[in-house]
Amino acid sequence: MRMYSLDFSVVLLEPLYDGNVGSVARVMKNFGFRELVLVNPCSLGRDARLMALHAWDILEKARIVDSFASAVEESNLVIGTTSRAGKTEGEHIRMPAYPPYIVREKLRGRRGKVSLVFGREDSGLRREELIACDMILSIPTGEEYPSLNLSHAVAVVLYELSDIEPGRINLARHFDLELLYKHFGDLLEDINYKEHKRKKTLLMIRRILGRAVLTGREVQTLRGVLRALQVYRYKCSDNPK
Amino acid sequence: MRMYSLDFSVVLLEPLYDGNVGSVARVMKNFGFRELVLVNPCSLGRDARLMALHAWDILEKARIVDSFASAVEESNLVIGTTSRAGKTEGEHIRMPAYPPYIVREKLRGRRGKVSLVFGREDSGLRREELIACDMILSIPTGEEYPSLNLSHAVAVVLYELSDIEPGRINLARHFDLELLYKHFGDLLEDINYKEHKRKKTLLMIRRILGRAVLTGREVQTLRGVLRALQVYRYKCSDNPK
Repeated sequence: MRMYSLDFSVVLLEPLYDGNVGSVARVMKNFGFRELVLVNPCSLGRDARLMALHAWDILEKARIVDSFASAVEESNLVIGTTSRAGKTEGEHIRMPAYPPYIVREKLRGRRGKVSLVFGREDSGLRREELIACDMILSIPTGEEYPSLNLSHAVAVVLYELSDIEPGRINLARHFDLELLYKHFGDLLEDINYKEHKRKKTLLMIRRILGRAVLTGREVQTLRGVLRALQVYRYKCSDNPK
Repeated sequence: MRMYSLDFSVVLLEPLYDGNVGSVARVMKNFGFRELVLVNPCSLGRDARLMALHAWDILEKARIVDSFASAVEESNLVIGTTSRAGKTEGEHIRMPAYPPYIVREKLRGRRGKVSLVFGREDSGLRREELIACDMILSIPTGEEYPSLNLSHAVAVVLYELSDIEPGRINLARHFDLELLYKHFGDLLEDINYKEHKRKKTLLMIRRILGRAVLTGREVQTLRGVLRALQVYRYKCSDNPK
C-alpha cells in the first residue's frame, strides 16, 4: 500500500452497449485500474463477459448507482471527457479542454481520488454534467471523424494516466469545491451582479479553479476571503440583509 | 500535400475477428490515418461494418496481401508491436521494446513510409516476424493482465503517433536495411565468426541499427565500410574465396 496515491475510478454514464462496458473493464485491468462505477447502465450480459475476458471481476465489483452526483460524491477531482473541445474563449463549458498528457502533468505529485467520467456512446455528457466537472479532457482527433468508440477513449486516457508519480499534495474534495463555487454564486448575488451574466461568470470561475487543481487548504482560504468580502459588504451596505 | 511527411500504414497480421478489424478502421479514421493493410485476414462481414461505422471506406480500400513481406515491401521503417517487452539484455528480439512516446520522439523530424505491424489477437507476432521488424514497440501495461485488445493497442499507438512534426530527414528504405543486415551476415561468415553466435549477433546488430533510425545515406556508407572490410580481408587472406 502506497502512502501517497492517486486513486482513479472510471465512471460510465448510462452506457448503452454491454460489449463496450466489458471492453472498458478489460482495458482498465490492462492498465492497472480497478474501480468501475456505472450510472444507470444497460444490463450486462453475454457481450460484456465476452469483451471483458479476464477482467470479469472488475465488472462484478462495479458500483452501480442511479445518479452522476452519487457516482462522484467521494471524489476529489471530477474529470469529464468530451469529443468536442471548446473552440472559442467564450465557451466556458468545454474551455479549456485538456489533452490527456496535460491532465497527466496536472496530476503529477498530487494525491486523492479522481473520477474519470465518460458519457453515453451516442451523445456524450450532457451540458449540466459537463458543468459539474472540475476539469474537462478531450482527446485530440482528426476533423473528419472525431467520435471515438467509448472503450478506445478509455484506453487512450488510461494509457496516459497510468503510472503517474503521486506526491504529498492533497487534492481538495469535489464536495468542498462545490461549496466554494456556491459561495461565489452567493457573493455575486449579494452584490447584485447582473443576473444574465451570473451563470456564465460562475462557469468561468469553475473552469479557472478547476484547471488550477486546488488543494483543500487553498479552498478553505478562498472561502475565508469570500466570507470577508461578505462581512465587509454587510458593514458598508445601507440595506443589509 | 505536405512536402515532408511521415506516411503510416497499419498492418494487421492474420486478424481473427472481423469486429476487431472494423474497430481498427474506425480508430484509424478518428486519428487521421488512412492506409490499412491486411495479411491473410478473416472474412469481413457484418461485425466489421458495425464496428467501423463511418470508417467503412478504410476497410473497402484496405490492401489485402498474403505475406508479411509484401505488406511492408514499400516501407522505410517497419515497427512491430508486442505485449511482452524484453526483460533481459540478452533478449534481442524484443530488446529494446520502446513505449509509444519514445517511438514518437524517434520519428520526429523524419520523413518516409512507416508500417505499424500488429499481430494476431491470440498469439501476436511470431518470432521470425518480430526479427524482420526494424523497431519494436510495446505499450506499458500492468503485470496482472497485460494483453490488450487489438483495437485498444492500435488506438493507443495511433493516439501517440498522430500529429508528429515531420522534417527533411529521409528514413532509409526497409529493403536497403535488409540488404545491410544481409551484408553484415556475409561478413561474419567471411571471417568465420562462430556459427552458433552468428544469429544472435546479427539480431543484436539489427536492433542497434533499428533503434538508430538510419537515413538512406547512412545505410550506403555503412555498406561501403563493409565492402572495404571484405576487400581488405580478401587481400590479406591466404585462402581467398
